[in-house]
Amino acid sequence: MTDDTAVPDPGAAQHEAEPAAPMRWDGWGDPAKARSLPAALRALLPLKLGRIRTPAPAPAIDEVELSPSALEGAEGRALRGELAAIVGDDHVRTDREARIRHAGGRSTPDLLRRREPRQQAPDAVVSPETEAQVAAILRLAAEHGIAVVPFGGGTTVVGGVDPVAGGRPAVISLDLTRMRGLVALDELSGEATLLAGTTGPDAEAALAARGFELGHYPQSFRYATIGGFAATRSSGQSSAGYGRFDTMVTGLRVVTPSGELDLGRAPGSAAGPDLVQLFLGSEGALGVITAVRLRVHPLPAARLAEAWRFPDFASGAEALRRVAQLGGGQAVTGPTVIRLSDEAETAVSLAQHGRIGKALASGCSAVTLFEGEPEVAAERRARTAAVLEAAGGSRIGEQPALDWERGRFNAPYLRDALLDAGVFCETLETATTWANLAALKRAVTEAITAGLAEEGAKSLVLCHISHIYPTGASLYFTIVAGLGGDRLAAWERAKRRASDAIVDGGGTITHHHAIGRDHQPWLEREIGELGIRVLRAVKAELDPAGILNPGVLIADGAAGRHG
Amino acid sequence: MTDDTAVPDPGAAQHEAEPAAPMRWDGWGDPAKARSLPAALRALLPLKLGRIRTPAPAPAIDEVELSPSALEGAEGRALRGELAAIVGDDHVRTDREARIRHAGGRSTPDLLRRREPRQQAPDAVVSPETEAQVAAILRLAAEHGIAVVPFGGGTTVVGGVDPVAGGRPAVISLDLTRMRGLVALDELSGEATLLAGTTGPDAEAALAARGFELGHYPQSFRYATIGGFAATRSSGQSSAGYGRFDTMVTGLRVVTPSGELDLGRAPGSAAGPDLVQLFLGSEGALGVITAVRLRVHPLPAARLAEAWRFPDFASGAEALRRVAQLGGGQAVTGPTVIRLSDEAETAVSLAQHGRIGKALASGCSAVTLFEGEPEVAAERRARTAAVLEAAGGSRIGEQPALDWERGRFNAPYLRDALLDAGVFCETLETATTWANLAALKRAVTEAITAGLAEEGAKSLVLCHISHIYPTGASLYFTIVAGLGGDRLAAWERAKRRASDAIVDGGGTITHHHAIGRDHQPWLEREIGELGIRVLRAVKAELDPAGILNPGVLIADGAAGRHG
Repeated sequence: MTDDTAVPDPGAAQHEAEPAAPMRWDGWGDPAKARSLPAALRALLPLKLGRIRTPAPAPAIDEVELSPSALEGAEGRALRGELAAIVGDDHVRTDREARIRHAGGRSTPDLLRRREPRQQAPDAVVSPETEAQVAAILRLAAEHGIAVVPFGGGTTVVGGVDPVAGGRPAVISLDLTRMRGLVALDELSGEATLLAGTTGPDAEAALAARGFELGHYPQSFRYATIGGFAATRSSGQSSAGYGRFDTMVTGLRVVTPSGELDLGRAPGSAAGPDLVQLFLGSEGALGVITAVRLRVHPLPAARLAEAWRFPDFASGAEALRRVAQLGGGQAVTGPTVIRLSDEAETAVSLAQHGRIGKALASGCSAVTLFEGEPEVAAERRARTAAVLEAAGGSRIGEQPALDWERGRFNAPYLRDALLDAGVFCETLETATTWANLAALKRAVTEAITAGLAEEGAKSLVLCHISHIYPTGASLYFTIVAGLGGDRLAAWERAKRRASDAIVDGGGTITHHHAIGRDHQPWLEREIGELGIRVLRAVKAELDPAGILNPGVLIADGAAGRHG
Repeated sequence: MTDDTAVPDPGAAQHEAEPAAPMRWDGWGDPAKARSLPAALRALLPLKLGRIRTPAPAPAIDEVELSPSALEGAEGRALRGELAAIVGDDHVRTDREARIRHAGGRSTPDLLRRREPRQQAPDAVVSPETEAQVAAILRLAAEHGIAVVPFGGGTTVVGGVDPVAGGRPAVISLDLTRMRGLVALDELSGEATLLAGTTGPDAEAALAARGFELGHYPQSFRYATIGGFAATRSSGQSSAGYGRFDTMVTGLRVVTPSGELDLGRAPGSAAGPDLVQLFLGSEGALGVITAVRLRVHPLPAARLAEAWRFPDFASGAEALRRVAQLGGGQAVTGPTVIRLSDEAETAVSLAQHGRIGKALASGCSAVTLFEGEPEVAAERRARTAAVLEAAGGSRIGEQPALDWERGRFNAPYLRDALLDAGVFCETLETATTWANLAALKRAVTEAITAGLAEEGAKSLVLCHISHIYPTGASLYFTIVAGLGGDRLAAWERAKRRASDAIVDGGGTITHHHAIGRDHQPWLEREIGELGIRVLRAVKAELDPAGILNPGVLIADGAAGRHG
């Protein structure tokens, strides 16, 4: 646990480390921060999407019809008692609010489901406090054949925590947020061990109190947990500087129905296959991650910002490629954050700020942030600026970059406002090599546009690059559409076309959202039938009863693909 | 394949890309480069090790007694015919020379075995030219239950290519060196695809002809292959700059008895566990790697060298830690190569150059090399120098660094000279965190010294750091001992003590030598019994007949641990 040394918290301003308010049950984030649609967007959208129909109002939480909990019947009560004997009666919850709050993630389909009168929910929410309790719960669940869905912040957007029993007698949500805190910090080596249920802000606050930082800031940062970041191979907005989450992990503790694993490779090791890499991205289907050892660094002393404009996406992407390859195969001395919006996203972003006229001839905007000791940060900025300028970029000051930074975790609030106004909004993402980037972007954009047109909807497809690597980059698409009727089914069809376009076009089905239930059919196309057989063999060894997050990552043998 | 564009080869001087002469059957490298023991060492060693007994002369290749090939008996000839039908008669060799040349690797125990009158060898050496041929060979071998040992350069020092049938009717060496060449180069993304049997020099020559470099220079560079580097998680001398081999890999093709895998993650991906990481380090036990896609970079324009002296190993290690953490969690702008010898290694190195007197008060020497565009390389050197100087280092000019570079691949020749002179010489290595480095070095040194003393041998234990990471570093030990009697058995006992000390002391059983047969019992202690069960489950899925390199990585169920 952290000590009480009164070190000022220089990271606080950045990550707003105050305890987050509980997430809205039917939308994103802190209910107090809900926003209405900006007037400029309200004016722009009908021009682009046609007439918008205001949807029926969503039900209040008390109006939702939930099926009764299987743990409240006669047989279920005995099981409930056994669970309570492990974690204590208070930590086996079958009340309506606990169940609804663990009823799914935060994809747009999830939020549309939260607007329906009848909803699925887990039969109970069980909250262990120790690794031994996790092990005991898994033994009990395996014995009874009960499905177990590990649950951190519940911010998945790919169906990673859906409470699906798949023919089993019950499904419990295993809420890990009582297992939280910094348990070890090796300041010399720069390694911290955090319990899996620690949220992003809590992790950074505990580290900042000791003068360290993890530097992992995905959009889900305020709610998501360390275990969730590991289980889904999360990637944060500072990945250009500090790397993807999977590159920060130096060790994992995992509890499975077959026993425990304590995997911690040395800084470099040739001791066979790297099993840590088998549990990063395992999404609760192979085991429950209980603690994560991570590479951390001293809190940076300075942060510099600079925004850029490029004539078009192609020239901007070429500029980012040169930045990513700056080191000539060695370390890149470049930005901590670098993002490039395409023409459409740049225009909508300007429109949000009431600058529609200017948007029409605006090209593409990019944001860069630099961190480190003051001199190092300045040097990183100068070196990056030289590359961006040589590639055709023009400086547009630091303000747009600071604006982006201030709002960096807030886009999901805007989605709620759009959904309330009857406008469909969702995101999807991929990554590929630099050589394939333009072709993949075109193919995916066309697939989404055509797929939604087939559903009778006009759409806007916005795109940005937010993660760069020497060999390629991510592509992040935001889709805004005037989708009416059965929006869930229509989107599922359009998304399927987009997913096909991604895999056919040589991209990965996901750069950082993970597989969950939604991407599972495309994982097989990405790693092949034999790759899936390898994952099944590992699962059969670790989870012979098949109780861990069934249907996530791998199709559920007991219930068919979507069971 | 490479085109013929006449680009000068700026990398040639560095890696001596001329085709390597065939490896000595009973020692290291090019027979023409064999050297005798330097006079200074010849004088020094008896002082340190006591009386050295000159061993009996080694047999000539024609004098070795080999058991007959199982593929030459009546039943064997049918199988030989089936293999010949796949690869052609010339590529199924059962002659004495081919068999002896594939009889094992190049550890000191391997070389001692080459000096014995009776030796083990594979029943045949089979050389496929295509992936389809590899697949057909594996199908045939699985059908007949024949053990298959994938063979690249044969430079393993951990028993990774021992021809052990383990109770099976035969064992064949699958020589992959006909599958060679650069098959694709994406210059924009910086990705190259090389066939598995391409040697280090051939890979670099093909890339250099296009202006690119891989930058992987392990001591085995001149003989080892791309597939071998991947299968063993090799790490090269330029790892501080270009990374370990496993970090360069962006895709793999693998042929298994159960089918083929084409694994190529996007530059970043959250599509489940990373299966590439399951085959990196799989050492031929899970499948045969046939092609590797790798991150490459433009050939660096400049190389700068600088050598350093530190008062002692502790201050030198602290200096290297600061260099490794230079980037504050972001990219390190530092050396391409950085190595620190401890006091003992520094003294012996000086003795080799006839400067024994000076050695006595010499502290520790370090070597640094820097690459990149001239200005970038100079900046990297300046920044690194500032850190090393602040940590107590003093510059000793570029010559010692250039001397090291010139001899960088030659240490194994010296080992042959020592063995010929009756002096035992072997290496072993590990890695751990910075915080644990000094304690682990002490524990391993003591274990080796005590273990050899118990065998009646005085010894010199030299150590260096050659690979640094933000969170820790490698430790590479060279052991020189006046070991007489049954040197193989005595060393096995002493090595066991060293391996126990490594794992008990929190190190990895291997930083870059891999597991092979020699380290297999310690892998279980490193990843746990459940970790081994996971590997077994994967092997059972991919290699149900258990024919692939049995006894390597995982104990051979058919034959017991050392079968």
